[in-house]
Amino acid sequence: MATHTEIAQFLAREFPQTQCTVEAVGNQSATIRHPIGIHELRPGGTVAGPVLMAVADVALYVAILGEIGIVPLAVTSSLSINFLRKPSADRAIIGVCKLMRVGKLLAVGEVSLYSEGSDDPVAHVVGTYAIPRQRAAAA
Amino acid sequence: MATHTEIAQFLAREFPQTQCTVEAVGNQSATIRHPIGIHELRPGGTVAGPVLMAVADVALYVAILGEIGIVPLAVTSSLSINFLRKPSADRAIIGVCKLMRVGKLLAVGEVSLYSEGSDDPVAHVVGTYAIPRQRAAAA
Amino acid sequence: MATHTEIAQFLAREFPQTQCTVEAVGNQSATIRHPIGIHELRPGGTVAGPVLMAVADVALYVAILGEIGIVPLAVTSSLSINFLRKPSADRAIIGVCKLMRVGKLLAVGEVSLYSEGSDDPVAHVVGTYAIPRQRAAAA
Amino acid sequence: MATHTEIAQFLAREFPQTQCTVEAVGNQSATIRHPIGIHELRPGGTVAGPVLMAVADVALYVAILGEIGIVPLAVTSSLSINFLRKPSADRAIIGVCKLMRVGKLLAVGEVSLYSEGSDDPVAHVVGTYAIPRQRAAAA
Repeated sequence: MATHTEIAQFLAREFPQTQCTVEAVGNQSATIRHPIGIHELRPGGTVAGPVLMAVADVALYVAILGEIGIVPLAVTSSLSINFLRKPSADRAIIGVCKLMRVGKLLAVGEVSLYSEGSDDPVAHVVGTYAIPRQRAAAA
Repeated sequence: MATHTEIAQFLAREFPQTQCTVEAVGNQSATIRHPIGIHELRPGGTVAGPVLMAVADVALYVAILGEIGIVPLAVTSSLSINFLRKPSADRAIIGVCKLMRVGKLLAVGEVSLYSEGSDDPVAHVVGTYAIPRQRAAAA
Repeated sequence: MATHTEIAQFLAREFPQTQCTVEAVGNQSATIRHPIGIHELRPGGTVAGPVLMAVADVALYVAILGEIGIVPLAVTSSLSINFLRKPSADRAIIGVCKLMRVGKLLAVGEVSLYSEGSDDPVAHVVGTYAIPRQRAAAA
Repeated sequence: MATHTEIAQFLAREFPQTQCTVEAVGNQSATIRHPIGIHELRPGGTVAGPVLMAVADVALYVAILGEIGIVPLAVTSSLSINFLRKPSADRAIIGVCKLMRVGKLLAVGEVSLYSEGSDDPVAHVVGTYAIPRQRAAAA
């Protein structure tokens, strides 16, 4: 297991370009926040799909690190997103991840994505992460 | 909208071969039960994957009918399943569907599948249904 | 690796209830045929979705066995299907699988499903199989 | 239908920040190229997953525009990606999209993603796009 602080420091060090912040982590879940500005918008004022996918990917990664400790080599194996509603152009995106299974080799979780302040998800993601076998050594 | 009784009668009439029963429906959700016998098992005592997919498909369909009324022509557009744990060979499968969006043309929902009596899901499904445009006339 | 005959015998022994026949296997691919009768149809004359998923599942399994040998414990890890066109009610379903990756622990493939005699797919599947670590011993 | 030149101009005007170039389009398919530099890499020299998803999303969009004409309001409805191999850190990403169905309301396609110069895909995507009803007026 890794604490909120350890994970936030790890993200800042390994992914200095990410704009995601860790709002909460633990108990097989994580909440991530990503601010939205002009660079994240598509014509029509929609948040670009790849931004939503990136937030979901980080949310899954953080939730998994919270369970298995800091394992830099865990990699996304698959990610499926369904777009549900148009996100607000002027609200941050919040990603709430809940892990469904953390096995020795594979972790599976779902992420609901929201425009901050709304209870209706803008998208829903299911993702799987492959966990390297030598995780004990890496952690 | 359709009631529990209307949907159960519709299933019995239109899908006389289904073994699924409707345990609950309403409020954008549905719970389905499917008994497990020798015909649903694979070597090793695992419930066959297509049985789980079929239960999820019915759960999505019933939840949607609960929202939009009896629309026989709604058809599955996509279905994604992740297998999480080995189901019990001697327990019924319970599928719990929650709809995430019911639009005019497309409904999206997720289904958690359990061996009856357990809280750990054996599989998780996300599915989409296409809703025919003339639903008002059909309902 | 396993031959066409070995795989057909394995399917007949382990899955005596399956109606799928192996039309071809080898070179990271497989072709499966499933006859369609009244039991596979839904109201409206559509082939039931779970039948299509089952054919895809067998096609993936057979293609993988063709690569790694007879490994009874390989299990489906995920399966995603998109329904594209209404299948013919009076034609067999043909599933053509091509593997995209066969790793030590996970194999990934796609399956195009057709009504026999047509070149337009009725559905498309991507699936992953988890391969047990002791495959050498089992093969 | 829209020509290669029309689509390239549309992308440059509507998505001035995209680094994707249209290598080919037509006949229900499209090929997209995205250069890879330091900003697209993750620790370990892997191309970031969201970059691959973005290339696939553009490839699907361009292939669809090639079929139905310039329809700015077509939006991604779902996207599923399987990561297959580690991409080269110093090669562009090439995305090759083939549409499987272009209906009135929904288009479905698959995208194989490669490191330029390699024949082994690094990832595979299936995506769906919702097409607005008033496409004729918009085109």
